[in-house]
Amino acid sequence: MAVHHDAHKDHACLTIHGPDQAGLVAAVTALITRNKGNIVTLDQYSSDPEGGDFFQRVVFHRLDLSAAMPEIEADVEKTLKPFGMQWTLTDQSIPKRMAILVSTSDHCLLELLWRHRRGELPVTIPMVISNHTNTAEDVRTFGIPFFHVPSQGPDKSEAEAKILELVKDNVDFIVLARYMQIISEDFLDKVGVPVINIHHSFLPAFIGAAPYRKAKERGVKLIGATSHYVTKDLDEGPIIEQDVARVNHAMTAADLQARGAYVERAVLSRAVQWHAQDRVIRKGNHTIVFTDRP
Amino acid sequence: MAVHHDAHKDHACLTIHGPDQAGLVAAVTALITRNKGNIVTLDQYSSDPEGGDFFQRVVFHRLDLSAAMPEIEADVEKTLKPFGMQWTLTDQSIPKRMAILVSTSDHCLLELLWRHRRGELPVTIPMVISNHTNTAEDVRTFGIPFFHVPSQGPDKSEAEAKILELVKDNVDFIVLARYMQIISEDFLDKVGVPVINIHHSFLPAFIGAAPYRKAKERGVKLIGATSHYVTKDLDEGPIIEQDVARVNHAMTAADLQARGAYVERAVLSRAVQWHAQDRVIRKGNHTIVFTDRP
Amino acid sequence: MAVHHDAHKDHACLTIHGPDQAGLVAAVTALITRNKGNIVTLDQYSSDPEGGDFFQRVVFHRLDLSAAMPEIEADVEKTLKPFGMQWTLTDQSIPKRMAILVSTSDHCLLELLWRHRRGELPVTIPMVISNHTNTAEDVRTFGIPFFHVPSQGPDKSEAEAKILELVKDNVDFIVLARYMQIISEDFLDKVGVPVINIHHSFLPAFIGAAPYRKAKERGVKLIGATSHYVTKDLDEGPIIEQDVARVNHAMTAADLQARGAYVERAVLSRAVQWHAQDRVIRKGNHTIVFTDRP
Amino acid sequence: MAVHHDAHKDHACLTIHGPDQAGLVAAVTALITRNKGNIVTLDQYSSDPEGGDFFQRVVFHRLDLSAAMPEIEADVEKTLKPFGMQWTLTDQSIPKRMAILVSTSDHCLLELLWRHRRGELPVTIPMVISNHTNTAEDVRTFGIPFFHVPSQGPDKSEAEAKILELVKDNVDFIVLARYMQIISEDFLDKVGVPVINIHHSFLPAFIGAAPYRKAKERGVKLIGATSHYVTKDLDEGPIIEQDVARVNHAMTAADLQARGAYVERAVLSRAVQWHAQDRVIRKGNHTIVFTDRP
Repeated sequence: MAVHHDAHKDHACLTIHGPDQAGLVAAVTALITRNKGNIVTLDQYSSDPEGGDFFQRVVFHRLDLSAAMPEIEADVEKTLKPFGMQWTLTDQSIPKRMAILVSTSDHCLLELLWRHRRGELPVTIPMVISNHTNTAEDVRTFGIPFFHVPSQGPDKSEAEAKILELVKDNVDFIVLARYMQIISEDFLDKVGVPVINIHHSFLPAFIGAAPYRKAKERGVKLIGATSHYVTKDLDEGPIIEQDVARVNHAMTAADLQARGAYVERAVLSRAVQWHAQDRVIRKGNHTIVFTDRP
Repeated sequence: MAVHHDAHKDHACLTIHGPDQAGLVAAVTALITRNKGNIVTLDQYSSDPEGGDFFQRVVFHRLDLSAAMPEIEADVEKTLKPFGMQWTLTDQSIPKRMAILVSTSDHCLLELLWRHRRGELPVTIPMVISNHTNTAEDVRTFGIPFFHVPSQGPDKSEAEAKILELVKDNVDFIVLARYMQIISEDFLDKVGVPVINIHHSFLPAFIGAAPYRKAKERGVKLIGATSHYVTKDLDEGPIIEQDVARVNHAMTAADLQARGAYVERAVLSRAVQWHAQDRVIRKGNHTIVFTDRP
Repeated sequence: MAVHHDAHKDHACLTIHGPDQAGLVAAVTALITRNKGNIVTLDQYSSDPEGGDFFQRVVFHRLDLSAAMPEIEADVEKTLKPFGMQWTLTDQSIPKRMAILVSTSDHCLLELLWRHRRGELPVTIPMVISNHTNTAEDVRTFGIPFFHVPSQGPDKSEAEAKILELVKDNVDFIVLARYMQIISEDFLDKVGVPVINIHHSFLPAFIGAAPYRKAKERGVKLIGATSHYVTKDLDEGPIIEQDVARVNHAMTAADLQARGAYVERAVLSRAVQWHAQDRVIRKGNHTIVFTDRP
Repeated sequence: MAVHHDAHKDHACLTIHGPDQAGLVAAVTALITRNKGNIVTLDQYSSDPEGGDFFQRVVFHRLDLSAAMPEIEADVEKTLKPFGMQWTLTDQSIPKRMAILVSTSDHCLLELLWRHRRGELPVTIPMVISNHTNTAEDVRTFGIPFFHVPSQGPDKSEAEAKILELVKDNVDFIVLARYMQIISEDFLDKVGVPVINIHHSFLPAFIGAAPYRKAKERGVKLIGATSHYVTKDLDEGPIIEQDVARVNHAMTAADLQARGAYVERAVLSRAVQWHAQDRVIRKGNHTIVFTDRP
């Protein structure tokens, strides 16, 4: 659970995906051994041993990792090329840079800032961007820069351009922590980093606006929250994590919203943590998530 | 949790719903007192103290209840008429008669039979009806009559007519324990008793056929089950109970189905228990459920 | 869930406990009716209809409650005296005054302050007292007074005397939000208000110090947290709320502690909310908790 | 979740534990590759990369596994000897043989029989043994032999001798599915196979007899169940799995027992499944459990 950056000194994470083939795991582990690595955790999944897709995440310890990275990368490329695999190799002691976009609701934002301060999220937070100003003081109390980018009227292109300017080359991923603006396809194309959203329903139920009101109208006995990668189709991107909470007839839509806030902050926190730890591999509209859930 | 019928000797359950008004609760409790009852549990809910709907469930103990019932009923009618309330009064020592309809999947059926045998469901089970024969032996081992009513081809009217004949005046409610046939509006009109279904998804997600396959395709991280009263609109009736279980990328649609079976049997059992204990009041497409959940 | 103080205008809460007797509920509801109240929620529990203890919590709406309180109180006393019942009557629009005592761990403290700021805890917080200073800035950022009362050495009498001075007549209850000092029997006698503690284990397992280390040593698969009223016997007071989280072999004692922090903050928050809403009645070493859990 | 034996054709499971060393994972995967295996799942855990213990479970697919087993075993022995590791190698298509011992309570027994019939437990059940006869008919309905071994009076040696005779060389492990007799150290020494128990509390709380009564007396808000390997110290053996359910003040000790039965049957089922799938490795009084929990 807890993430201590210094504990990640000299730890690398290798993720792999591509066509499943015999000998792949052996090739990878031999690779790690000859590069003086010691495997710490290894997760893998094959959608079908014959003709399916293969996914793997290996964390290994290697003394003086930083100096050896170029050499290891070259060896990974050489080793995995014949298998036709995609791969990433990251130094686990280097936290990813995360921008948070938020509107007026602060519960997801504060949970992320608080977990970050406790050392439980392996990220740095170079900026929080909001189309409102109500969270500015809280954000700066945590020692984090806050930028106000208003977004009024139907044309969002100016606001998106300003956001792009701020995040470009400065962040490794973006979190929409209840950012109540629709992101354009154009923005997604240009930003070039993953964007993670929290939707306040158990998708695919209650897609779109006002899910708590819709949940009240339908009379469901559980409400939920869903964290997913943002794609051009609203609320249709690959799901990373979901959870629910029990509700009853006596709760108003406002009560559902208040209760749901606790589900949202927990679900988004887990999704962010897993993404930051390279535990999530995307494949089409699905995710393979090698969680640390006990 | 446990339901001991003898423990329910001389216990009555009064449910009430209608327009909320001052003095209603006092009128009801005075009524119970003058009829020599002692309130055991009392639950109530008002959708709005001013102009809303009022729902109440009171269980009270009354020596020689059975002999006094006609007199109490008359007093309830006289007392509640001025308030314009609907009401039911039941002797809790008289179990409701429940018919179970099932196709080939036996997990919900067996869970109900097993809980019934343990004395945890306050019902009698005069019959199990199936369009298949594979569960006949199991059902009869529990000492319960089994009727085979085949239902092939697109025209279900003959099968429905036979089922109507069997259940008419013999049961107080019907449970579809994974009965994979669509019930016609005509059947619902004629049968005149509540029909409870278990749907193998977290409604309103994955309405209709093959929800586990659809869940796999969407890549959800939780699967669910929903028990609801059957109305003419498929999977749209008032929800009684729902629950979920966690799943992941490595589970096939068949794995989801196997895992989901445990959610289905638990959700349906709770819905049946609460219905049998007069804990569920229907209002439009909603339910007010005064659960015994701790 | 959500608590909006203005929504509690003109709402009173009456709690009752004593020997169960026929006519009690009717007497109480008649009482409320003749005092022009309209019952909003009513919960009750009898340990045994014959010779047991009776517990009830009624919330009722009454226009101009504040002006009518003395009159209603007199009527309650007159009505309940013949039944030999203990009772409390509170105006729900007047929040209870809560002092928080804390040592260095901030997770429970911040959760309470944050929920309070969101309007979800019906309390005021006149002070936070700590034997350390690390949380001072955070507390004051929330606009709440912080007092540093050092507590070094084996003799705690001086520190306790200072705390008594601060809280005396200023608070209605005290919360130990991970206050790592043993409270003396003498302090409990003198302070005269309830004291709520959070213990970082699933009591009665792992009483006393270092429960996460003990949990790791025993190899349990779940860890827990317990909120209870403080009595002179360490970790033996009446339990208000408990919950657990799943852990596994790979987690260190430090991981258990990090994971457990999330259970602690949730459990303590619920206990505080229920206490503040007069949902908890103590009887010997037990609690009767009329929760708002759906 | 679902276990289909035919799906396990040509699948082997290798478990390893011993001192952690660099090169171990590479040696194992190279071993599997040169024996023409394709790794399906791999889990591992190291208590400390420097000087700690290493645990691994690998499932691999190998055409014509059965014929190749002796050769693979020899290679495993030769490969792992230099590392000083303990290991097991099992053919996953060969189910383990499980004896069930039970007294009068049937809920754990029936759950195991029912899951077995659904093909979800990778075991055969050569016998059920009871010191009572009430479950005999149910057991035989499932097509499983039932043996009655009475166990009256303080001296259990005769009963234990009879049980030993029945199970000796006929079973691979024994499950105490609410067998209310204390097992002697002598029996454990002689039987030579693992014995799994279900205890009806959240250990280490409420060790010994009547845990539900003790839970009621303490006023806990959750009850639990624990499945563990039996050792000579009552309720002190290595824990495999635990879970809890919420209870409240209104529930009697009998209610707790009825509610707890559902926790017990789920917890024991998971423990049995994981043991049968070689997912559990014992180390002193701890278990390393490579669960299939999503």
